[in-house]
Amino acid sequence: MAADQTNSLRFGRKAITVEEAQQLILNRAELLPAEAVPLELAHGRRLAQSVIADHPVPHFRRSGMDGYAIRASDSLDAEALRPVALRVTEMIPCGSVPERSVQPGEAARIMTGAVVPEGADAVIMLEMTDKLLAGDGPEGDKVLVRKSMRMGDNITPIGQEIEVGELLLETGRRIGPGEAAILATFGFAEVRVHRVPRVAVFSTGSELLPIEAALEPGRIRGSNSHMLACQIREAGGEPRLMPILPDCPETVEAALLQALDWADILVTTGGVSVGDKDVLVELFQRWDGELIFNKVAMRPGSPSSFGWWRGKPLFALSGNPGASFVGFELFVRPYLKAIQGCACPLPRECTALLDADYGKGSAYPRYVRARTYTEQATLKVAPAGRDKSSIMVSIKDAECLLCIPAGGQAPPRGALVRVLQLAEA
Amino acid sequence: MAADQTNSLRFGRKAITVEEAQQLILNRAELLPAEAVPLELAHGRRLAQSVIADHPVPHFRRSGMDGYAIRASDSLDAEALRPVALRVTEMIPCGSVPERSVQPGEAARIMTGAVVPEGADAVIMLEMTDKLLAGDGPEGDKVLVRKSMRMGDNITPIGQEIEVGELLLETGRRIGPGEAAILATFGFAEVRVHRVPRVAVFSTGSELLPIEAALEPGRIRGSNSHMLACQIREAGGEPRLMPILPDCPETVEAALLQALDWADILVTTGGVSVGDKDVLVELFQRWDGELIFNKVAMRPGSPSSFGWWRGKPLFALSGNPGASFVGFELFVRPYLKAIQGCACPLPRECTALLDADYGKGSAYPRYVRARTYTEQATLKVAPAGRDKSSIMVSIKDAECLLCIPAGGQAPPRGALVRVLQLAEA
Repeated sequence: MAADQTNSLRFGRKAITVEEAQQLILNRAELLPAEAVPLELAHGRRLAQSVIADHPVPHFRRSGMDGYAIRASDSLDAEALRPVALRVTEMIPCGSVPERSVQPGEAARIMTGAVVPEGADAVIMLEMTDKLLAGDGPEGDKVLVRKSMRMGDNITPIGQEIEVGELLLETGRRIGPGEAAILATFGFAEVRVHRVPRVAVFSTGSELLPIEAALEPGRIRGSNSHMLACQIREAGGEPRLMPILPDCPETVEAALLQALDWADILVTTGGVSVGDKDVLVELFQRWDGELIFNKVAMRPGSPSSFGWWRGKPLFALSGNPGASFVGFELFVRPYLKAIQGCACPLPRECTALLDADYGKGSAYPRYVRARTYTEQATLKVAPAGRDKSSIMVSIKDAECLLCIPAGGQAPPRGALVRVLQLAEA
Repeated sequence: MAADQTNSLRFGRKAITVEEAQQLILNRAELLPAEAVPLELAHGRRLAQSVIADHPVPHFRRSGMDGYAIRASDSLDAEALRPVALRVTEMIPCGSVPERSVQPGEAARIMTGAVVPEGADAVIMLEMTDKLLAGDGPEGDKVLVRKSMRMGDNITPIGQEIEVGELLLETGRRIGPGEAAILATFGFAEVRVHRVPRVAVFSTGSELLPIEAALEPGRIRGSNSHMLACQIREAGGEPRLMPILPDCPETVEAALLQALDWADILVTTGGVSVGDKDVLVELFQRWDGELIFNKVAMRPGSPSSFGWWRGKPLFALSGNPGASFVGFELFVRPYLKAIQGCACPLPRECTALLDADYGKGSAYPRYVRARTYTEQATLKVAPAGRDKSSIMVSIKDAECLLCIPAGGQAPPRGALVRVLQLAEA
């Protein structure tokens, strides 16, 4: 961004769209370094490497049944009442290697998951056979095969599930149960993942009390930091809750600067409106950093601001709980995902039918805390509760953000609306 | 369960429905003890107490604007070009307490979020006023009010968001961002939550190699334990990966018994089919515990078994990766949620249109690893990939389980089907 444009932003406030703001943020996202962690501790982390199959799965011809490995041609004339007798040469349990190949007239007893011996080209289920005990004939154990098998029956060929060279996991992918199964199968006792983003969380406002304090007239306990800490954890970050910031911009600057020793990212709430004590606004006017935006065309959270300072980002969110929550989801979470390597860091979108009378329109697009549910495969969405930006109690029921476009009138009940999903993926 | 019924289950195998199996499991769920943890560490834990409002929110009449607190009756005749002059008595920032009440003819400068002083019954936005500096009149600072206000304008009454005695969080609820905000607001520096369930995870199978081992002919690396560890973490549990169990039931019994020193729950995979080396089946025949079920009418995972031993549960899941994954979601996760206090521990259901040609039916209901997506607010569902129970590679793409009912034919493309959601709530 050109210096004169930055300057004009410092003293005026030009609203940009949410999409523009997200793009400006993601333009600044640089991958965190990689580190190796034991697979057992890698849950929820994002891969700093892709995983390509270095062996096929299965890597041997695998029996899909308990039974006998045979040559299908030997069973050509077999029927339930006219069985074919084959000589049993060995027993092949799982995890062992066959000792001989199956010759015409022979069979090998085999377990589900075991290696099919050479020569054999089918496995017949145990239930379709009968064992002739030693002593019943001159040549040791025999088995009676009571069904005609085709070549390949009950054998999983090499590479049927995964072929050598197949891309199994792309870099940036979040490690969940299925990813862990693949990593284990391919021997990743340690896995390279991006470092956990460290996020220092500050609240501003002289009305704020620490959580353990008794209530005082005119003062409230700070709740945004604790809410944001949970959001940061859900986005794969490590939060650190910092002391409540005073109203003095010099002190704020010193506190933020000190946090940068540890933190990759600074997040503040409050102090961004234009009022007498809006300490973040004052900070942006005096600091030696870059102010990238300080107004976004959205409700709640239009004074959400984003700056760059000493090589690191500062997200200054609005102090209202609802605005703080939404600002995190739209701006901070995508950034945290991007620096951990996520290829699609913006919230996943879907469409739903509006199941509420939303009332009057708004000059800016609204992001309403909401819930979805289905009725006969139709996805419906409704606000999670009272949605004023100052209201905190409905955040607990928000599973998604319902997008109400700007305009004189909100969409009517039954209208198709955009929905942003909040769950991590 | 009567002893003779248990005995018949030990030696025969009677398939029960998934719903019956879930009920038998939940009947055994006893709440884990509560412990106090700092709110900062409570993310993802479940409340062992309900939270009831012990004060209203806001607990004072709160200004919704930057402006002046006035008596509405004083502004009755005010217009943009015919302002009313009021004497400014004080300045009330956030977090402070007004020093005097507002008398007729008076106004108090006030910030957003600050206490509205007694006597005042409206707040007028700063933009609708002009300040008369000291010296402009004989009585100190005056403000020109340019709009007629109504009683209550821009004042949030006491208790508007939350009333005293309101139930805010029910016991068993999972602590996420919105819950943390409420807990902070009500002073819960520590919060009582249920202890984290400790789950020992065992794999069986002599074909299994440890993850760090080089591949050998006929052997594969064990992947189920790592997959299950992630599923356990997602369900709020603490997994411990145990060494691979050998084929000897005596050794298995000793290893499981030892794990019970630490574990609340035992989970095993493999060894539950009826084959020569099905060590869990053998264990169930020789141990001094109770076998509650050992066959469920479902695909994959019909040999999923559940027992009770020394006061603790043993979930014996099928060894195929797909069956293991599904068995965990249908049986183990609900149990883990229930013992942490969750009131609705079964997977959330919705309906969707089947967007695939599923092919032939099945004697048992199928639980297919699947994904959902919307098109014009219609929820559609399709398998996440190849779904044979032996196939592991598609688990990573599973976001839900698509339920295909039992029957000669699977539902056609476009049919309405049940979907079980996997994400935690």
